[in-house]
Amino acid sequence: MSDSELETPATPAPDEAEDRLDEDDRLRPDFVRRVLERVQAGDADGARELVDPLHPADIADLFEIVDRDERQALAAAIADLLDAEVFSEMNDWVREELIDALEPHEIADIAGQLETDDAVAIIEDMEEDDQRAVLRALDPDDRAAIEEALTFPEESAGRLMQRDLIAVPEHWNVGQVIDYLRSGEGLATDFWEVFVVDPQHHPVGTVQLSWILRTARHIAMADLMQREQTLIPVDMDQEEVALRFQKYALISAAVVDQAGRLVGMITVDDVVHIIQEEAGEDVLLLSGAGEGDINEPIRDSYRARVRWLIANLGTALVASFIIALFGAAIEEMVALAVLMPIVASIGGNAGTQTMAVAVRALAMNQLTRSNTWRTIGREIRLALLNGATIAVLIGFGAGLVFSNPALGAVIAAAMLINIAIAGLAGVAVPVLLERLKQDPAVASSVFVTMITDSMGFLAFLGLAVASGLAG
Amino acid sequence: MSDSELETPATPAPDEAEDRLDEDDRLRPDFVRRVLERVQAGDADGARELVDPLHPADIADLFEIVDRDERQALAAAIADLLDAEVFSEMNDWVREELIDALEPHEIADIAGQLETDDAVAIIEDMEEDDQRAVLRALDPDDRAAIEEALTFPEESAGRLMQRDLIAVPEHWNVGQVIDYLRSGEGLATDFWEVFVVDPQHHPVGTVQLSWILRTARHIAMADLMQREQTLIPVDMDQEEVALRFQKYALISAAVVDQAGRLVGMITVDDVVHIIQEEAGEDVLLLSGAGEGDINEPIRDSYRARVRWLIANLGTALVASFIIALFGAAIEEMVALAVLMPIVASIGGNAGTQTMAVAVRALAMNQLTRSNTWRTIGREIRLALLNGATIAVLIGFGAGLVFSNPALGAVIAAAMLINIAIAGLAGVAVPVLLERLKQDPAVASSVFVTMITDSMGFLAFLGLAVASGLAG
Repeated sequence: MSDSELETPATPAPDEAEDRLDEDDRLRPDFVRRVLERVQAGDADGARELVDPLHPADIADLFEIVDRDERQALAAAIADLLDAEVFSEMNDWVREELIDALEPHEIADIAGQLETDDAVAIIEDMEEDDQRAVLRALDPDDRAAIEEALTFPEESAGRLMQRDLIAVPEHWNVGQVIDYLRSGEGLATDFWEVFVVDPQHHPVGTVQLSWILRTARHIAMADLMQREQTLIPVDMDQEEVALRFQKYALISAAVVDQAGRLVGMITVDDVVHIIQEEAGEDVLLLSGAGEGDINEPIRDSYRARVRWLIANLGTALVASFIIALFGAAIEEMVALAVLMPIVASIGGNAGTQTMAVAVRALAMNQLTRSNTWRTIGREIRLALLNGATIAVLIGFGAGLVFSNPALGAVIAAAMLINIAIAGLAGVAVPVLLERLKQDPAVASSVFVTMITDSMGFLAFLGLAVASGLAG
Repeated sequence: MSDSELETPATPAPDEAEDRLDEDDRLRPDFVRRVLERVQAGDADGARELVDPLHPADIADLFEIVDRDERQALAAAIADLLDAEVFSEMNDWVREELIDALEPHEIADIAGQLETDDAVAIIEDMEEDDQRAVLRALDPDDRAAIEEALTFPEESAGRLMQRDLIAVPEHWNVGQVIDYLRSGEGLATDFWEVFVVDPQHHPVGTVQLSWILRTARHIAMADLMQREQTLIPVDMDQEEVALRFQKYALISAAVVDQAGRLVGMITVDDVVHIIQEEAGEDVLLLSGAGEGDINEPIRDSYRARVRWLIANLGTALVASFIIALFGAAIEEMVALAVLMPIVASIGGNAGTQTMAVAVRALAMNQLTRSNTWRTIGREIRLALLNGATIAVLIGFGAGLVFSNPALGAVIAAAMLINIAIAGLAGVAVPVLLERLKQDPAVASSVFVTMITDSMGFLAFLGLAVASGLAG
């Protein structure tokens, strides 16, 4: 054994890797600085030497981390390390920037090395002219595969799938499959399941590679395969695909066309980043931050965000209009102006809590038509509990500070009313938007904020006037 | 081929499955109702007949969807369909409720059928007495594995890993590995990679099953294996584990103890739901909704949410205090009371946008020490653009409506100042919290809201007084 141990160079010594990556697996700032110093000094060999041991995912991170104006120089210095895999790991915006600086034949070289789905991801965002130039420079086979993928809608299973897969007839036995895999030139190398198909190329079952390896050669695939499988229609939205992978704990899945024929395969590693993105985008959408990518050009971020700020200006005007109705009461009793933002602010917070829960539950298919009313009832009960707690606190507090028990009673009642309304709106608005086939994460905030702001001011100032406290 | 086709029962006809699941793969409300009607009518056979064709993940969904008081009756009716796999797919709260009603030996039966990580997930939340009773009722092997897993911290790789894996010495060739897999009794059946280890059981490489299947029997594993692999320390936090799986597109990974010995394996299907949860929890944490699970008992949800509402009450009081300083100005010019919530509300919204972007970027390791200043600069530039746009709109609007250009100028200036501050706070607060080893998603909101509310009122009312407009 000592021989083979000598032959096995250990993975890079820990202290070496620690030089580049911190304990959270992120590139160290001083490592990044050292690379950039060599690039700026024109020492391309030195920069390459530093970057070479990095995993492609880390090289991609390096490009994301450095300033925009340093990316092209870095790309030029370490050009031969900037391979297809690095591009496929890279943030969309950063990749687009680097790709823009390349010639069509260089892009075609990179795309040709990638699996179809990764090549499509690079090519789909290009200008049409550039796209055509790249496609012309590609191998006919790669070109056909990419052109076909581009015919499917963006963010659909057809764009996500790869065409390289292993499909065998059901009458084959394990031995035949192994011999086929060993002999086959140009067959896929990275796959996790073998698909069993009928003569019309319809999938009829799937066999995990571990089952093939654990089974004697004479056993038929038909006896080994699992017949129940999740088939992905080629036009299914990628978010749906991600939910299926998660729900059924899939490693790979067959993609079928409208006639039910096997046309491709999606593997879990292509789905993981979609699961991540889709789950993480709710917080960005709810806040009105658009795609919310720190590498997005400022002009795009500005457009995405200012829209929602202007919408928020509209809802704030509604609230202001309500306050204006009570101008006389405020002039008479300025304490109303002092306290009114509390009612609106806490109502808004309570509404946001409920809304966040509802939006997540909708996204994860946990809140469905079957339990909508139960969930609404649950959120209202919760809102009444929260409302009662806050009402008691603010009621006593305001009553004492202003030596005015009636004012305390009014703000307590307004608080309870507004938190209850917030609870109802927080779940009802997202559910309604979903029924109307809108993304509940996108527009819920504007409506819920408008409701909690307006109702907060209306309840507080209205009760103050109605109770004869002021106005 | 027609013969084998006859032998192959097609997957359930589409219209049959459509009877149970809607186009988004969720259980249909009328199907759920039919099941419950049979349960309530005491027709256990009828209920079982309906539920039987469902995938375990859908049976788990069924329990999540029905009301709390119907779950035990449903569980009793379809007890023999309620197997280990269903439990492992089930929401934590719902599972706990059902488990509470079972005897220790019934729980032990279920746990014994599961992979270690799923069994641990069921047992780890039980009361200590019940836990001991279940452990006593388990097979000694299962018991040892689960007890060992329970010694690792919650949410660590040690709890997530399974012990069943395939490890072979590097001098073996492909043929030996296949013979070993075929002969081996009690070996794992579901695995995606074979780990190659040295005599001290340190992992030295990994081989995808597809490579084994595509390679001739005489080739040595040492020549086939990929030496670079991502090793997961047994005490690594599950969020870190999920980030590694995503970054390096892993299907499975070796878990090593402190001496670097292979002790377990984590597969991507166990990580996918963590990626989903961790990415999705930011929106819940930022809104102060705790775990935000619609199946969580109301008492727990109340505790989680009311804490943040009380914290928000504190920050609202700070804002009120600032307004109170300007009581005289408001009495003189009630338009200030009408307009002041606009400045605070839009500032709050702008702060939330920036905060959401910063929190996501931190969670995805995109915002690191290397690009903190660049990102802060980016957000401030964005804030100035947004602020200028909103300032012009509200400035002209307010100036016209109140026929008071000075008032328009004051609110425009206050708006610009508050949005700029919101941009700075929205990125600086999460970054600072992370440097202090706090979860930026948990506490950022309270601080950012306090800053944008207070600064909004202070800038607007303060400028109104300083410019001689009022007070």
